[in-house]
Amino acid sequence: MIKVGIIGASGYTGSELLRILAQHPEAEVTAITSRTYEGRKLEEVYGGFTGWNGPVFNGSDSIDAVAGCDVVFLAMPHGVAINLVPSLLEKGQKVIDLGADFRFRDAQIYESWYKLQHTQRELTKNAVYGLPEIYRKQIRQAMLVGNPGCYPTSIILAIYPLLKAGLADPDRIIIDSKSGVSGAGRKADLAYNFPELFGNFKAYGLAGHRHTPEIEQELSLAAGKAVKATFSPHLLPVARGILSTIYLNLTKEITTEEVEEILTRSYQGEPFVKIIKEPRLPELKWVAGTNCCHIGVRVDRRTNQLIVVSVIDNMVKGAAGQAIQNMNLMCDLPETMGLQQWPVYP
Amino acid sequence: MIKVGIIGASGYTGSELLRILAQHPEAEVTAITSRTYEGRKLEEVYGGFTGWNGPVFNGSDSIDAVAGCDVVFLAMPHGVAINLVPSLLEKGQKVIDLGADFRFRDAQIYESWYKLQHTQRELTKNAVYGLPEIYRKQIRQAMLVGNPGCYPTSIILAIYPLLKAGLADPDRIIIDSKSGVSGAGRKADLAYNFPELFGNFKAYGLAGHRHTPEIEQELSLAAGKAVKATFSPHLLPVARGILSTIYLNLTKEITTEEVEEILTRSYQGEPFVKIIKEPRLPELKWVAGTNCCHIGVRVDRRTNQLIVVSVIDNMVKGAAGQAIQNMNLMCDLPETMGLQQWPVYP
Amino acid sequence: MIKVGIIGASGYTGSELLRILAQHPEAEVTAITSRTYEGRKLEEVYGGFTGWNGPVFNGSDSIDAVAGCDVVFLAMPHGVAINLVPSLLEKGQKVIDLGADFRFRDAQIYESWYKLQHTQRELTKNAVYGLPEIYRKQIRQAMLVGNPGCYPTSIILAIYPLLKAGLADPDRIIIDSKSGVSGAGRKADLAYNFPELFGNFKAYGLAGHRHTPEIEQELSLAAGKAVKATFSPHLLPVARGILSTIYLNLTKEITTEEVEEILTRSYQGEPFVKIIKEPRLPELKWVAGTNCCHIGVRVDRRTNQLIVVSVIDNMVKGAAGQAIQNMNLMCDLPETMGLQQWPVYP
Amino acid sequence: MIKVGIIGASGYTGSELLRILAQHPEAEVTAITSRTYEGRKLEEVYGGFTGWNGPVFNGSDSIDAVAGCDVVFLAMPHGVAINLVPSLLEKGQKVIDLGADFRFRDAQIYESWYKLQHTQRELTKNAVYGLPEIYRKQIRQAMLVGNPGCYPTSIILAIYPLLKAGLADPDRIIIDSKSGVSGAGRKADLAYNFPELFGNFKAYGLAGHRHTPEIEQELSLAAGKAVKATFSPHLLPVARGILSTIYLNLTKEITTEEVEEILTRSYQGEPFVKIIKEPRLPELKWVAGTNCCHIGVRVDRRTNQLIVVSVIDNMVKGAAGQAIQNMNLMCDLPETMGLQQWPVYP
Repeated sequence: MIKVGIIGASGYTGSELLRILAQHPEAEVTAITSRTYEGRKLEEVYGGFTGWNGPVFNGSDSIDAVAGCDVVFLAMPHGVAINLVPSLLEKGQKVIDLGADFRFRDAQIYESWYKLQHTQRELTKNAVYGLPEIYRKQIRQAMLVGNPGCYPTSIILAIYPLLKAGLADPDRIIIDSKSGVSGAGRKADLAYNFPELFGNFKAYGLAGHRHTPEIEQELSLAAGKAVKATFSPHLLPVARGILSTIYLNLTKEITTEEVEEILTRSYQGEPFVKIIKEPRLPELKWVAGTNCCHIGVRVDRRTNQLIVVSVIDNMVKGAAGQAIQNMNLMCDLPETMGLQQWPVYP
Repeated sequence: MIKVGIIGASGYTGSELLRILAQHPEAEVTAITSRTYEGRKLEEVYGGFTGWNGPVFNGSDSIDAVAGCDVVFLAMPHGVAINLVPSLLEKGQKVIDLGADFRFRDAQIYESWYKLQHTQRELTKNAVYGLPEIYRKQIRQAMLVGNPGCYPTSIILAIYPLLKAGLADPDRIIIDSKSGVSGAGRKADLAYNFPELFGNFKAYGLAGHRHTPEIEQELSLAAGKAVKATFSPHLLPVARGILSTIYLNLTKEITTEEVEEILTRSYQGEPFVKIIKEPRLPELKWVAGTNCCHIGVRVDRRTNQLIVVSVIDNMVKGAAGQAIQNMNLMCDLPETMGLQQWPVYP
Repeated sequence: MIKVGIIGASGYTGSELLRILAQHPEAEVTAITSRTYEGRKLEEVYGGFTGWNGPVFNGSDSIDAVAGCDVVFLAMPHGVAINLVPSLLEKGQKVIDLGADFRFRDAQIYESWYKLQHTQRELTKNAVYGLPEIYRKQIRQAMLVGNPGCYPTSIILAIYPLLKAGLADPDRIIIDSKSGVSGAGRKADLAYNFPELFGNFKAYGLAGHRHTPEIEQELSLAAGKAVKATFSPHLLPVARGILSTIYLNLTKEITTEEVEEILTRSYQGEPFVKIIKEPRLPELKWVAGTNCCHIGVRVDRRTNQLIVVSVIDNMVKGAAGQAIQNMNLMCDLPETMGLQQWPVYP
Repeated sequence: MIKVGIIGASGYTGSELLRILAQHPEAEVTAITSRTYEGRKLEEVYGGFTGWNGPVFNGSDSIDAVAGCDVVFLAMPHGVAINLVPSLLEKGQKVIDLGADFRFRDAQIYESWYKLQHTQRELTKNAVYGLPEIYRKQIRQAMLVGNPGCYPTSIILAIYPLLKAGLADPDRIIIDSKSGVSGAGRKADLAYNFPELFGNFKAYGLAGHRHTPEIEQELSLAAGKAVKATFSPHLLPVARGILSTIYLNLTKEITTEEVEEILTRSYQGEPFVKIIKEPRLPELKWVAGTNCCHIGVRVDRRTNQLIVVSVIDNMVKGAAGQAIQNMNLMCDLPETMGLQQWPVYP
């Protein structure tokens, strides 16, 4: 039984880790921390956990709180994990950081987009970007994983194989993403007050969202050259899920069916990626509560565009589920363990 | 042209007053106040008002801000209006308070339920409870109106005539109300964070909500004896509207049609109250954005219960619309002026 | 491995059975039927099942379609199951009917409320009402279970122990229930067209809903005398969940805490029923996707009323989950097998 | 007083025409038709119209039903209006068609995208495309107006002046639009069953939606050369509103502020188009229930893209409101008459 600790467990990512780990046959949560809820039971914060018999919230975010844990998940604001990771690694604990601190190969890019100084540049070299569909081998060996952002997961999975296949012009990639509100986290903020968002919809963070360099980092590796992407996030009036619609300039003539074929072959054997074939297109709720990513494509011959649509649950494949998938790999467990639920629908 | 001032105009009630007054042919908003948004344009707070050419927010809540206004609306937290009203009245300004400070004939009841001291007990005697369907005559003469609460409006209109007709036992009235989230006001509060409420539903404030004594005050007058009501509010995952389901013990044999007839007669000529007859029942969205109250009834012969269902828009008939209806009456204007919109549906 | 067949598997109840059974370690779905979708793969109807490798839809609803199954779930319109059950039982198959045909001890009540003739009155005597918290022993021995209705489950669990304890007057029970739209089933009907219900809320079926006699049947057994209940269902603008608010006339002085104590003792050891204690109250999403029922209470001393609030997921504890809980009992498996998920929240 | 008839008045477009016309000081609805609801009162179909004292539904869709009307609105399925229009025009009635039959200058394009034969090709030459911001003069003289589609309105208003200014490459325009469900009309269809769409989101009609040629027709006129646009509609889980996010390849260096300036100048004096300036961006609910279009822009210097975001209410500026704006122009009334409501928010 793997002992698991979660630092910063009272947010939505924390509670989602707990939801999934509660079903995991080989993991046991032995420590959860939250400065806000020190000494409180989980069910006092999340009524749905009434009857859960795990630990109460430890009020300290220090590494002592997770002493004895084999794996530690960090669900902290950007910049905070940097200082905790070295000590955790020294104690031989495996670390999965759900923030942005260890997602970048080039710490300078992190510093320029996140306006923070990166005090552990050396560590970034050993950190693995936790997208198993691309870095499975490295994750198995890793002690430190930078768990991908929610938007980047939905986007990279959708078009990585297509850029790799040279199908599309890497110079003009348009990404129009729509996310449920849980992506903004659990916080008291007038902008997320229920009546403001009910029946509403809007774009935000245009031409500057911090997930952009993360997306470009991975897509550039796929394309074999620097990729520039226009990334436009929108706020959907739902709790969960991300749908990304991606527009690629085709570099050669190809049919919808042939593109589907390329994706199908690329993801052959992948447990969590599924290609939705014409005439169907992926829907947000088809992956709600699951670790799956669904991808559909259409070639628009009139305009020579390839339109790619992907859906994930931002809380699962976009955060906690992927983190547990990474934990499974790092701990030599079956990759899908604890992650095989079907969506709650309708 | 009547000059109107709104103290506390940046909340949802304030913006709803502004929405309706902007269409009012005989009223002009000349002053709006908000401590939070001093000097800001209305459209900076509510983007929907982009292009509105009224005044900017005055940062003071003092009465000087509304000097020169003929009518002043107070949309303040409970207890704050008490201290502003005397000076406003001294200047001859008509006052409509949208809070609870002047709704009670007996200031002691106010003090015991609101846990505040009422320093203007004399004024409560001159204040009129602003429900035109009952107090039209007095409102026409009033200088100070206590605008009814949203829940009480939906409940009193629904059963006042039935209690007056002696149809029901006043000792056991069960009121199960459901309100949209705008009723909680415009505030940054984790409890109203969009993801918490999306797809959710709950009861709150059971056996102690502060609208209870207001409901009982008016229903007792209808029944001619002290009424005791069990009032249970619930939070609907929508922005607007209140639906109240009310259960009355019938004191005599009567049919659904006969009860409909009593209500129809009682509200004959009322512009904003409509009886929805069997087999139809009122729906929340039928009154969205309007000043209307729809009422439907069913007699359950098996259990000898009379079930009454009413709907209002909590922001309109439950607050701003009713306040403007009162203004029309106080200013000798046609009662329906500016209030005749049909619902935005679907 | 238990072989399971589902007759009428393309509706929401069918797909929910499939969602849960896909995780069940001791059950294997070997046959699903649907006249509409003959020969089609499940994923063509429910995209969320893309990758599921169970059987395709058999186009026949006859018992041949489920030959060889140990357990057969019937998810058919009322009146249809009656004719299938005898042959299934003859073949030694265990039957769980999710419709109303076998919920009543007195077939005459069924006939009068459902306007159908019951041609298998003898069978109703052997059928067990599938509410494990009350009939666990009988279910273990049963070959035929009438799975309870969604509303009745939420109501009976909430107040059965309280009526049994003689706390409340059985003559005037008021039940105000609110259900998500999935309760109406999967059908093309203008009344359930998305724009009609979005942001909307309404009561329906007042003074005559067919779940009333089912509720009264069980509550009468609890009270030891005939119970008459006023039952008012409402349509919540969400996909899933039922919240029932129940009003009981107290027959003696008691505190909220004492009532909580009675419920806690009654449900001691029950895996799926949880008492939510003051100051908390149950919320709809706390049980979404789970087989749990949460119950909270408040005594209103002013009015001598006991207010009981319960929540269930109408698709799980209100239908498919409870059916599988019954299957576990009938097949001598651990009662909670396959049913221990925590809610997907937020 | 202008006499107005509506053929096909029981759909959402029809009821929206009625909502707005009920407030119009110079128009009177004298005839409404619906084959489905012959002889029924409007309030039986739309409860929100309870108390409305206009005509009942005429069961015939023939032109006799609207005899004596000065203006006739046609809210029919595509292809049906074609046959009614000649007779209406012969009687000297002004016609506003809310379908696609008279939107195209080239009937062949209509035939190829709508798969219908256009039997009144001559009439298309006299029909005016009813977008007042571009064709105000012609509309004033017109007897027949083809009212624009909802998506095209949101898109053409957003970028017409920018293409006209030569800012953007007309060869690669990407349009990612999101619409509320009322855009699909009032119909019983499983695809729009409430539980299917609640909490859901999806793309549809990729690379082939029939609004594409209408968009290209107008944008080509703006650009002065043939425009090809990739148009991707999505279904938002709300009742009303369209938000379009449009991506343009910039042909020269320009700032966000300069683009805002171009739009502001272009729409100087326009009563219904408003430019939302940085740092704000338009939100769907800011125009709900109004005839307004809000437009915001951002230049992404890194990728040389111009991102344009527009919002309209699909039922108002996207259909009924724009039709009434056209009626006002055709009848020499003030253009904004009956159309000056502010949004119902929140």
